[in-house]
Amino acid sequence: MFPTNTWYVACTADEIDEKPLGRIICNQPIAFYRALEGKVAAVEDFCPHRGAPLSLGQVCEGKLVCGYHGLEMGCDGKTVAMPGQRVGGFPAIRSFPVEERYGFVWVWPGEKEKADPALIPHMEWHNNPEWAYGGGLYHVKADYRLMIDNLMDLTHETYVHATSIGQKEIDETPCKTTVSGDTVMTSRFMSDIPAPPFWKAALRAKGLADDVPVDRWQICRFTPPSHVMIEVGVAHAGHGGYDAPAEHKVYSVVVDFITPETDTSMHYFWGMARQFNPHDKALTAQIREGQGKIFSEDLEMLERQQRNIDTHPGRKLLMLNIDAGGVQSRKVIERVIAAEQGATA
Amino acid sequence: MFPTNTWYVACTADEIDEKPLGRIICNQPIAFYRALEGKVAAVEDFCPHRGAPLSLGQVCEGKLVCGYHGLEMGCDGKTVAMPGQRVGGFPAIRSFPVEERYGFVWVWPGEKEKADPALIPHMEWHNNPEWAYGGGLYHVKADYRLMIDNLMDLTHETYVHATSIGQKEIDETPCKTTVSGDTVMTSRFMSDIPAPPFWKAALRAKGLADDVPVDRWQICRFTPPSHVMIEVGVAHAGHGGYDAPAEHKVYSVVVDFITPETDTSMHYFWGMARQFNPHDKALTAQIREGQGKIFSEDLEMLERQQRNIDTHPGRKLLMLNIDAGGVQSRKVIERVIAAEQGATA
Amino acid sequence: MFPTNTWYVACTADEIDEKPLGRIICNQPIAFYRALEGKVAAVEDFCPHRGAPLSLGQVCEGKLVCGYHGLEMGCDGKTVAMPGQRVGGFPAIRSFPVEERYGFVWVWPGEKEKADPALIPHMEWHNNPEWAYGGGLYHVKADYRLMIDNLMDLTHETYVHATSIGQKEIDETPCKTTVSGDTVMTSRFMSDIPAPPFWKAALRAKGLADDVPVDRWQICRFTPPSHVMIEVGVAHAGHGGYDAPAEHKVYSVVVDFITPETDTSMHYFWGMARQFNPHDKALTAQIREGQGKIFSEDLEMLERQQRNIDTHPGRKLLMLNIDAGGVQSRKVIERVIAAEQGATA
Repeated sequence: MFPTNTWYVACTADEIDEKPLGRIICNQPIAFYRALEGKVAAVEDFCPHRGAPLSLGQVCEGKLVCGYHGLEMGCDGKTVAMPGQRVGGFPAIRSFPVEERYGFVWVWPGEKEKADPALIPHMEWHNNPEWAYGGGLYHVKADYRLMIDNLMDLTHETYVHATSIGQKEIDETPCKTTVSGDTVMTSRFMSDIPAPPFWKAALRAKGLADDVPVDRWQICRFTPPSHVMIEVGVAHAGHGGYDAPAEHKVYSVVVDFITPETDTSMHYFWGMARQFNPHDKALTAQIREGQGKIFSEDLEMLERQQRNIDTHPGRKLLMLNIDAGGVQSRKVIERVIAAEQGATA
Repeated sequence: MFPTNTWYVACTADEIDEKPLGRIICNQPIAFYRALEGKVAAVEDFCPHRGAPLSLGQVCEGKLVCGYHGLEMGCDGKTVAMPGQRVGGFPAIRSFPVEERYGFVWVWPGEKEKADPALIPHMEWHNNPEWAYGGGLYHVKADYRLMIDNLMDLTHETYVHATSIGQKEIDETPCKTTVSGDTVMTSRFMSDIPAPPFWKAALRAKGLADDVPVDRWQICRFTPPSHVMIEVGVAHAGHGGYDAPAEHKVYSVVVDFITPETDTSMHYFWGMARQFNPHDKALTAQIREGQGKIFSEDLEMLERQQRNIDTHPGRKLLMLNIDAGGVQSRKVIERVIAAEQGATA
Repeated sequence: MFPTNTWYVACTADEIDEKPLGRIICNQPIAFYRALEGKVAAVEDFCPHRGAPLSLGQVCEGKLVCGYHGLEMGCDGKTVAMPGQRVGGFPAIRSFPVEERYGFVWVWPGEKEKADPALIPHMEWHNNPEWAYGGGLYHVKADYRLMIDNLMDLTHETYVHATSIGQKEIDETPCKTTVSGDTVMTSRFMSDIPAPPFWKAALRAKGLADDVPVDRWQICRFTPPSHVMIEVGVAHAGHGGYDAPAEHKVYSVVVDFITPETDTSMHYFWGMARQFNPHDKALTAQIREGQGKIFSEDLEMLERQQRNIDTHPGRKLLMLNIDAGGVQSRKVIERVIAAEQGATA
């Protein structure tokens, strides 16, 4: 249950360097590698010769060379050469549109001719001196939509992340969900509250007082197929909250690219882009470590939730107001899939 | 293949303290916890909100609070509260009758209205100054009935436990099996034999000679659904054996509560209640360690037996006289299940 | 998909010593042990009493004694005795023809009456002072025929074993495949080439120059059910290559016995018999270690190839000239299986 005529994040740019990378995306084993001049390429991870995984091979002069018997695969899925063989009649394997952008490799697992790089969402923080970015990757054995639910309902922070970003005021403050086209937005604005530990640290890092009341905001935006960007921050209370001038607030964007691996597992690329102290690399590393720890707290919950759902397949789950973000996001996904299938049929 | 309208041991009392405990009993994932005043409670391990396992949550003021979004579950499976929500229409989840007794938590996985605490078997050794008890828990990947077979035929001691409680005289001495109502009893009385190492140590612990001939007894009692109590001991020969006065014998009861987890796995609660040196805690610890080691010798055998049975599902096994205890116990189990199904139908 | 009326290597002679050995051969769990006078025996690994694996037991006076309740099994699958029991009516279990030869135990998993020890292939290097042998065993989660493919097409050495025995001249030199009865032979002769590291070391070990051009040969012989013997070696160039006098060459035979465990796993017995410095035990150990490392490089490739084939069951693989050895070997296997089934029907 995932769209395929769309761009997913397949890996970070540094995951494929000298060596190819084998990764399953939307149930398809794919070999990613760097072809001529470092340009990323992606083909089925299946050598047409004897079925060996091409990702176990090497890249030589821009061609992916099978590590079993030396078949040289081209970016287009056509065999270029093989020692001692005429390869003209070799069956082609699938190749996949790929683009490298914003430090990620994006792959289009569906119909090749529909792939338009212009559809890759814009990330304003990339290579922007006013921003800093740090992030990581988790493999999670759960339906990717459980992560969308998770990120579109931040009341879980109070329970799962109680010691860092959770606080009871999240629960106590209603959120508002709106849908605009394919974008789902859930927002929550908290006024005049204490800052939780993560934000206290951020305030201190910027040289701001951390022991005064703050306004806090969380604005979650889902866009298909499965990207969730969350504007988060706190401002010293009484300066305009989300709209406060930069000197009174700390502000960042939680970046989540959620790529289905199989029907019940995902690659979860998480990160944070921030506008305060962008040149402070030690702070970037520290935030990255903290966020990694916080986000790891969700993993057992989601994996166990998946197992519970597998055990009780027929059971209806509740759809409360706090769940509206996830519910609406799933509706968008269903609509996108239906449109895809209609277009194909 | 297990009765469900019956009491099983779910856990030891100390397994649920501050934190809830998730455990599968008779194929049902259950969250056990301590509600108000420490009273044990058990509900389905499935939050009605989004299917998260409640056992990953916390207990606050006697309510089980889901660790994902803070739903507060009551002992009766009805949602008590949830931040920002009206919960009146929330679907209830199952709750299970539970009782804490003899240091164990007992659960009734079947029809709630039939649960009668009076049906929990009496353990005379509990909180009895004349007795001491020590035990442990093993998880075993085998049908629980294989453990009943094991315990109702102690000729296996000669082979599996050769260095501790086994001796050839067990094999050489016929056993006698009787059925009385739902109780199956297999007994063996050996006369004028050397004591094996475990019993030598027990004699020494009581200050009795360990190098003289003894009479030894094993009286295994199965009661439904899957409890096996084994009276074991040795007396200096010629003093009446099982009926010898206390000063000539060492006597204890092997306590086995065998709880089905799934069709092919179990929770095995083993222990020993003894009447000699009951106040000697070091001895209790030493016996517990020794018994744990002895009983662990059975695990590989049972798990491999299970795999062999899975590989050859149609194959008939032998039912010898030594197997009568297990065979009769299985007949009782089948009768209990049939009665249960008849009563329900 | 494997013949069963044939001899497979079940284990090395030293794998069954005091203790029995349980091993699955052609989907059948078998207990191997040494009966009277050390003679090897093999019976189903399933005690007729309660289904315990006999391989967990002991051998006493030539009988396999079940480690659970002491049933004594004979080599013919008939119960010899059991404490306190009359065993005349006990059902027999299967026994398997076994022979110990050349340091291996050979088993015939099919119809017992067709087992003829004369069909075990002759290994001239065994107990022959002109030869030395060293080898090992790998468990591989792949169809045994993938290993036959591997060994009958040595162009993979260039890629998988690039740092030891691989060299581009293998790829550049055509091979020739012939079939003679049930024997498939693929040979390659390379002239006037540099020796790769493994052969340089072998030349040095024999006191020959390692920095001069050599002639190199590879002659792979498949015989049913799944044995592959490979004559390999190098001679100083210009002395006749394969036919060069012994003082100008180093020569050995790669010995491969490939025994199906299940449809998608195998026991792979690999080794090397050599004619140079046969009395140098340190060299034998050194070669064994080197070969073990080299052959371990194939394992991930084959296991991943198997998974790829499982993922794409319908997909046709190529059959190039270099694959002829494997393709023809598979045809022989199919013919042998068909003959076996015809004979049975």
